[in-house]
Formats: sequence, structure tokens, C-alpha cells
Amino acid sequence: MQIHTEGVHSKETCSQAASAIRDALYVIGGKWKLPILMTLASGPQRFRELQKMLETITPKVLSKELKELELNEFIKRTVHPTTPVTVEYSLTHYSTSLQKVLIELRDWGFAHRQRLRASLRASKSEQVLEEK
Amino acid sequence: MQIHTEGVHSKETCSQAASAIRDALYVIGGKWKLPILMTLASGPQRFRELQKMLETITPKVLSKELKELELNEFIKRTVHPTTPVTVEYSLTHYSTSLQKVLIELRDWGFAHRQRLRASLRASKSEQVLEEK
Repeated sequence: MQIHTEGVHSKETCSQAASAIRDALYVIGGKWKLPILMTLASGPQRFRELQKMLETITPKVLSKELKELELNEFIKRTVHPTTPVTVEYSLTHYSTSLQKVLIELRDWGFAHRQRLRASLRASKSEQVLEEK
Repeated sequence: MQIHTEGVHSKETCSQAASAIRDALYVIGGKWKLPILMTLASGPQRFRELQKMLETITPKVLSKELKELELNEFIKRTVHPTTPVTVEYSLTHYSTSLQKVLIELRDWGFAHRQRLRASLRASKSEQVLEEK
């Protein structure tokens, strides 16, 4: 991996970097935390809206993830005094520190999906050629 | 979150971005894959070396993670014909596509650790003031 220019080169620095990544994953790891934060980037959302946008998440898991994100100061839970009360979740200022991580993961995710599609197309056209 | 400049602003684009992040996490998510790739950034390593550098990983989990990373073309397993045989793991060219993700996560992990330390120091000095 060409990250020598970034100051990562020896076993020791790579080991420290791996440890920093483990620290990061300890708070933002798992299947849902980063997708939830990205979903909230368009503005405050209610529980049901989030659930709908995240498609396959269960209410139990979403509730647990939101609590952990609130505890770690990435999101804020606001109760509006309507009848019945309205609860909204929004990003905190601290969550903006994750902006670059989210953008890089998003870009990589898009590129990876395209790569998979291209390789699928390639194997399909090979099949067609074999069948001819 | 100020990612409007990056082209993410509507609910729809945020939802697509969240979906791309989920795609990414599907292959590189979990506690160990990214730390393993970062550890290998210093050069090829043997199983025992990796295990030592990653400290708390069990051999069973490391073995499983290495197999999955190999299957997804992020690492290469090379068997050298020594007596006994030597097995080395190294990064593939495709793993370089994850460089920015790794660097951003590393930097965020470092910054987050410093933030936690600063907040710990602040709460300790508050305690000292209260005790006086």
C-alpha cells in the first residue's frame, strides 16, 4: 500500500495506525452507525423516517444505535412539545469531524459496487461466448 | 453536517450515500479487517507476526478474517517453499483503493482519543477543585 508519503512506513507506525483505527471502530464500527449518520446529513429526522430510509434495520436495533450515538455525542435527540410529542434526531457539531471518513467510505462503496458489476458483466459475456 | 459542498444535500442523495456506505461495510466492516490491512501496509507479514501486532485477536478469528480478505482480493497469501513452508500475507493492488479510507479513519481515531483524554483531564481537575 502506497501510504509511505503519508508518514506511515515502519512496522511501529503501522501498528499505531492500526490501533487508532481500532479506537475509531470501537465507537463508530458496526453495520449501522455510519449509515445512520449519513442519513441524518440531509437534516433532522424522526425515528420512523430513519427506519424507512435505512430499509432493513429493525426498530430495536435502530433504537439501540441511536442511544449509543447520542451517548457518544454524535447526535442530539430533541423532543418537541406537540400533541402527541414529536422526537427528532439531528447531527451534533462533533459529528462533522466524521465528514471525511463518511465521504471516503461512500466513494469507496460506490466504486466497489461498480467493480463488482463490471466483473459480473465480464463473467456473463464469457458464459455467452462459451455457449456459442 | 457540512457535506453540501460535496454534492450530498437532499434526502435522496443522503440515502444513496448511506447505501454505498453499507455496501462498503459489508466487505470491510467488522472489528478487524481494516486494522489488518493497516498492519500489512508496512509490508508482507506472517500469521504469527500479524497476531502479535494485533494483540487481542484470536488465531481462529485472524484466520477467518484473512480468508475473507483474500476472497475479496484485498490480500494475497504466498507460500514459500522453505522447510517448513513459510506463509506470508501481503496487500494486493486493489487494497490501495482503500488507502484514503484507512488514513481518514486513522486520523479520526487519533483525534478522538485525544478528545477523550482532554475530557478526562478536565473532569479530573474539576474533581480536584471540588475536593479543595
